[in-house]
Amino acid sequence: GGNIANGEALVKKRTCASCHGADFNKPTNEIYPRLAGQHAEYLKHALIAYKRGDGPNGRNNPIMASNVADLSNQDMADIAAYLHSLPSDLVLKR
Amino acid sequence: GGNIANGEALVKKRTCASCHGADFNKPTNEIYPRLAGQHAEYLKHALIAYKRGDGPNGRNNPIMASNVADLSNQDMADIAAYLHSLPSDLVLKR
Repeated sequence: GGNIANGEALVKKRTCASCHGADFNKPTNEIYPRLAGQHAEYLKHALIAYKRGDGPNGRNNPIMASNVADLSNQDMADIAAYLHSLPSDLVLKR
Repeated sequence: GGNIANGEALVKKRTCASCHGADFNKPTNEIYPRLAGQHAEYLKHALIAYKRGDGPNGRNNPIMASNVADLSNQDMADIAAYLHSLPSDLVLKR
């Protein structure tokens, strides 16, 4: 698990919301993913992939690379826990 | 825009649902992303990134690479349109 409070602090120090939306549910451009509602495991995997860059299970994206460059694996787990914890405006249909 | 019917046919010929879930909303493992509810533009971008592999705006993932290797840009737009069109079990909170 991750430390939600640390994840929130890390996200707020960065510019995440300027693309992914203040609520992480309505990206500011449709080319960016919605993060609210994703599982923490996937979110952590994606962050680690952006830190890897090229190579197996990596993702090469200059914007994301600059945002994750100084994050530890625990920091990324914390961010994933925070994003997963957000009160999404998405709810399961009953 | 994309051709939803072609997108559906392409998805069904592949093994997409075995990871992303039959409804593309409940991945079979929390390490995989939920696709339902994402914008078509983002989904198309992600598919193209997996086809690129290493390099700028690429994603290196062996499973996804094998699934997109023979897809054209139009095919990927069609798949994105299909996934975006799915009746998600996510609804906006009122």
